[in-house]
Amino acid sequence: MAKDKIKVGVIGLNDRGKYLLSLLLGMEDVEVTAICDLDQKLLLESAGKVFEKYGRQVKATTDADYAIKRDDTDAVFIFTSWNSHISLAYEAMRAGKYVGVEVGPGASVDEAWRLVRISEETGMPCMMLENCSYGEKELMLLNMIKKGLFGELIHCEAGYMHDCRFFADDLKNERAFHYLRRNCDLYPTHGLGPVMTWLGINRGNRFLTVSSVATKARGMTERYKSRHPDFDGEFRAGDLVTTTLTCAGGETALLTYNCASPRPYSRGNVVQGTKGIYSEYVGKIYVEGHGENDKWDDLGNYREYTHPLWKDKEKIQGLGHGGMDWLVLRAFVEAVKNGTDTPIDVYDSAVLAAVCAIAEESAALGGKPLPIPDFTDGKWMRRKPGVKSPYSLEGPGMWE
Amino acid sequence: MAKDKIKVGVIGLNDRGKYLLSLLLGMEDVEVTAICDLDQKLLLESAGKVFEKYGRQVKATTDADYAIKRDDTDAVFIFTSWNSHISLAYEAMRAGKYVGVEVGPGASVDEAWRLVRISEETGMPCMMLENCSYGEKELMLLNMIKKGLFGELIHCEAGYMHDCRFFADDLKNERAFHYLRRNCDLYPTHGLGPVMTWLGINRGNRFLTVSSVATKARGMTERYKSRHPDFDGEFRAGDLVTTTLTCAGGETALLTYNCASPRPYSRGNVVQGTKGIYSEYVGKIYVEGHGENDKWDDLGNYREYTHPLWKDKEKIQGLGHGGMDWLVLRAFVEAVKNGTDTPIDVYDSAVLAAVCAIAEESAALGGKPLPIPDFTDGKWMRRKPGVKSPYSLEGPGMWE
Repeated sequence: MAKDKIKVGVIGLNDRGKYLLSLLLGMEDVEVTAICDLDQKLLLESAGKVFEKYGRQVKATTDADYAIKRDDTDAVFIFTSWNSHISLAYEAMRAGKYVGVEVGPGASVDEAWRLVRISEETGMPCMMLENCSYGEKELMLLNMIKKGLFGELIHCEAGYMHDCRFFADDLKNERAFHYLRRNCDLYPTHGLGPVMTWLGINRGNRFLTVSSVATKARGMTERYKSRHPDFDGEFRAGDLVTTTLTCAGGETALLTYNCASPRPYSRGNVVQGTKGIYSEYVGKIYVEGHGENDKWDDLGNYREYTHPLWKDKEKIQGLGHGGMDWLVLRAFVEAVKNGTDTPIDVYDSAVLAAVCAIAEESAALGGKPLPIPDFTDGKWMRRKPGVKSPYSLEGPGMWE
Repeated sequence: MAKDKIKVGVIGLNDRGKYLLSLLLGMEDVEVTAICDLDQKLLLESAGKVFEKYGRQVKATTDADYAIKRDDTDAVFIFTSWNSHISLAYEAMRAGKYVGVEVGPGASVDEAWRLVRISEETGMPCMMLENCSYGEKELMLLNMIKKGLFGELIHCEAGYMHDCRFFADDLKNERAFHYLRRNCDLYPTHGLGPVMTWLGINRGNRFLTVSSVATKARGMTERYKSRHPDFDGEFRAGDLVTTTLTCAGGETALLTYNCASPRPYSRGNVVQGTKGIYSEYVGKIYVEGHGENDKWDDLGNYREYTHPLWKDKEKIQGLGHGGMDWLVLRAFVEAVKNGTDTPIDVYDSAVLAAVCAIAEESAALGGKPLPIPDFTDGKWMRRKPGVKSPYSLEGPGMWE
């Protein structure tokens, strides 16, 4: 029996957390029963928002442990700093909660393995809330792939091309903290999430190897020095990181991380199959036998492939990052309500976390391809897309 | 003293050779004194063309050795099959000739080394005639880089994205011969040539490592089977090959080979520097402080960066592959006339040949990064762009 309403705790109330909290407060079937942050000021601010919405006090605490172990919650959202995501997820699963955790660059393969093992032991799902997996174009591409438009998949590309040099303005900013110390693709999941659904990773396919090379580091250091001429340190994160992944199915994937150079935003999605190709940079598609021979075609001619989740575009657009944030939260909430697994499950979350750590090791070794573990212990061979709750990518009426 | 006119031998008169011969016959300062092919029919056909132009017989022979060792030639062009390029180049240099050799996928690192050693021993230059190094956009980008528009270079991309499945229609075709047997980027030079000039390879910079991963092979096999249902063989060349190179200067380069899938043609050029980016797929440029903030800008707003060699566009366009073929042949001819080194020199030619062989080995090892030799024996550190003959990339009036 599905629940009509679920109760959730929210940990981490900085900018991103505050924003996602506001989306949750807008959902009639979600009740926020506890909020938590180490910063009293942020805590009070969010408590005010909850009061405004519900007309009553919320439990506001600086004690994550207390926020996690409450009897009255079904699920815990973790929107804290990158390095604390995974260990808080362990605690929440052990407390019997569904876990929805913001994206972040994993630090080790072992922490990803523990995520899997604790989920398996406790039976509690853990979903990394990768919003781009729910992007309009990304889901349209998934729909096209599922319907066979591209034929057999050969190669996918994605990434995060976003001039983020402004993060270097404040060394206390979390991203700057990592950029200063780690040389790797520090934001792989926006590209990796959609690529994983396209390639059926953990559902008939899996990644075999990860190889990564980083350029010299210039953008962040120059930006910081332009404001602090005395600074004699150096950011270690290469300006542009190229990561290639190989798959059991014979496909390859290419991830690009380009966050310290001037350039317009893009996620650089590419899908190449035996029958056609889509390129985000071109902004167009080419499918053999459709449109003019050897000429890029407008995506507008393929509107029939709009993903079911995006059919009611007006409703969801503007609800959060153009709808993506709202959809990914809904997918999680529906899984909790229906007692199903989450559509991005713990095996996917482990891959999303581990790729960063492995790519970092590969870059340190000059691009040596390193194996990525099979977090499913072989189950990927028989697993099929199959979470049948609303807003999951394979929900009712989608690809049956 | 520069020569007014040079005499050349031309070996290899298949489609490509025939076409380049016609360009040479159109040059008043070039005299074709010998032509050579193993195929009598091709030989007769080209002999007819030479007669038509000069009004007299040309020495036409099936004996490459005889065509190379003639006393009356200054240079030899080699337009033969891929596997014979390099060994014929050895012979021509040993006979004291300038060598202009068509592009092709190298087979071993050692053959590239021998190219270098024989050139050093004989003092004869050897130029791989990579036409895309003379492309309009490619040279405009070089001009922008030289003028500092992109700041410090961080990363370059290029490749060969061309649906070449038609080559699988005839297994006797040379490309099909290689596609059937070798799994690697079999056509790297169209991307590599321009990338090398952008990055200053062998002139202050050098490639350090090459890493390559290939997808499964589908396109060629499916094409051939569609016409020959009984075919039970398999093409070994992966449909899409991704190759990453690292540089001594801290830059990375990405080469994509995508020749067995449906897609419009592209060379996928990307230049990312600390001040801006160009992307061929977007078809636009972004330079900090120019145009609108964070918005792609039309290349048309940067016409001042047209490369000097392309200023007289109307004259050279239509002269061969939109001008590229004509320019690359002119650059070679001018070097012979002036007795200078060739602008794409033997060290560059060795890199152009070796990358294919090394990438093939890397792909066989699952993408292991392999070192690429320093063919200059350390001279790259002091070498500067410097061939001052007309049509060389650093010719008179270009970047002094």
